[in-house]
Amino acid sequence: MPQRIFSGMRPTGKLHIGHWLGTLNNWVRLQNEYECLYGIVDWHALTTEYANVAGIAGNVIEVATDWLAAGLDPKRSLLMIQSLVPEHAELHLIFSMIVPTPWLERVPTYKEQREVARRFNGFYRPLFPEPQAMLSETPKVVGTDGRKMSKSYGNTIALSDSPSEVHKKVMSMMTDPQRTHRNIPGNPDVCPVYLNHQSFTNADEVAQINQACRTAAMGCVDCKKTLSASLERAMSPIYAKRKEWERRPDEVRDVLIDGSKRAGEIAKCTMTEVRKAVNIYYGRE
Amino acid sequence: MPQRIFSGMRPTGKLHIGHWLGTLNNWVRLQNEYECLYGIVDWHALTTEYANVAGIAGNVIEVATDWLAAGLDPKRSLLMIQSLVPEHAELHLIFSMIVPTPWLERVPTYKEQREVARRFNGFYRPLFPEPQAMLSETPKVVGTDGRKMSKSYGNTIALSDSPSEVHKKVMSMMTDPQRTHRNIPGNPDVCPVYLNHQSFTNADEVAQINQACRTAAMGCVDCKKTLSASLERAMSPIYAKRKEWERRPDEVRDVLIDGSKRAGEIAKCTMTEVRKAVNIYYGRE
Repeated sequence: MPQRIFSGMRPTGKLHIGHWLGTLNNWVRLQNEYECLYGIVDWHALTTEYANVAGIAGNVIEVATDWLAAGLDPKRSLLMIQSLVPEHAELHLIFSMIVPTPWLERVPTYKEQREVARRFNGFYRPLFPEPQAMLSETPKVVGTDGRKMSKSYGNTIALSDSPSEVHKKVMSMMTDPQRTHRNIPGNPDVCPVYLNHQSFTNADEVAQINQACRTAAMGCVDCKKTLSASLERAMSPIYAKRKEWERRPDEVRDVLIDGSKRAGEIAKCTMTEVRKAVNIYYGRE
Repeated sequence: MPQRIFSGMRPTGKLHIGHWLGTLNNWVRLQNEYECLYGIVDWHALTTEYANVAGIAGNVIEVATDWLAAGLDPKRSLLMIQSLVPEHAELHLIFSMIVPTPWLERVPTYKEQREVARRFNGFYRPLFPEPQAMLSETPKVVGTDGRKMSKSYGNTIALSDSPSEVHKKVMSMMTDPQRTHRNIPGNPDVCPVYLNHQSFTNADEVAQINQACRTAAMGCVDCKKTLSASLERAMSPIYAKRKEWERRPDEVRDVLIDGSKRAGEIAKCTMTEVRKAVNIYYGRE
């Protein structure tokens, strides 16, 4: 049996190239070695969006379409919606009974998730393997304004952006603010365009760009055109695949519903054990 | 449409005459005027019993048998088990998202329950009527040792106790500790036996007992025999009915499962509205 991986994303908006490079490309790779369950965790969206829920239902299909476009394969990975597996709510309720109030004041991390499992196992039966974090290097993807790429900053390049939209966004990106003229040498280390080159352009070309920027041999416009081309190369397979899935929203939906049913089967087995462990099963025997 | 009442008890042990006088007899009366839903709230039992769950499943049927014995009528009241209506867990999860952490530090009362409903209604849609407390005078039922009757003190007279068990417990009750001899006048105000007379013996007789105690005209043994007789009179219909239901545990179980199904239908309608309100319904339309 391959080891099981669970990860998820909250349906708070369309995904961007930061999600792709930091997460989705890892998920795609993991499909070959693990039993992968990926969830659109819509209930989790409420943790921050409880006062702002208008987009949640619509974002579910946007995120799923992004996932499929990026290469998640429903034949290898189980793609699901959290709220379609109500056993999660039941386990949430039971876990909520054993979490001491002071734990709520701490910032949740993998450490705490391991502690909840351990506490359950200690009180009742060793049902839950303690989740292990699988950490990876996350390349820094900066937004068009130089800050971390984030929907809330309005500085993203979305996976659903067309090549011309991507081009336009790249050409409007901030660069080294000291380089106020084409002839002034720039400092790539503080340039958002250069930082993204490091993620999306091949290493040899990145070294040349670095050199050409520092010597003013290349101007920002050409540098941006190169980044735009790199992004188009990297993103065009995703973009094309997304266009295909966008035409078949019912199929996207079926993928999610099918995956949720399969996740429900797993969850039902787990909850049968959990109910026995906490001795709350009368009427279900 | 009659107004709806929901109340519940946690399956933490057999019920005693304190439950009956303080709660169950009210529930029985309310059956005639309201749509009554009474729940054995087994998940709630975890709030205090999370480290001590051994009895929960077994106590469900004990509590239900006590309820039926005390006169709850499955034809008029809906009797249910909380954990058989998983929609409660889903609503718990959603409510948990909108309850601010500081609220968790406060002792929960009806006030807070009203506030959660109000907060939900304010954020989303006015789906939840704010629950109104229905308060009643609660006669003081003291245990055999003079403290509040409570399973955790081991001082209870259970609804399932036989008349001879009740008699034995009453005869062993504490009395006014100053009345060390039959000839010494007693003080009924501090006597556990007298306090229970006030709940179970008719008022004229109670007045006579008060007088006879203060003048040493009646001794504690006779006073206890009178209380034992009062309790037998009050409890014998319950005891007889309990014996009947004890012989039909499958019927008790069916009552609970049927009630839980009916409660589930109500909960499903509510949750359809809740899911729309929080915009988490993708895949369910």
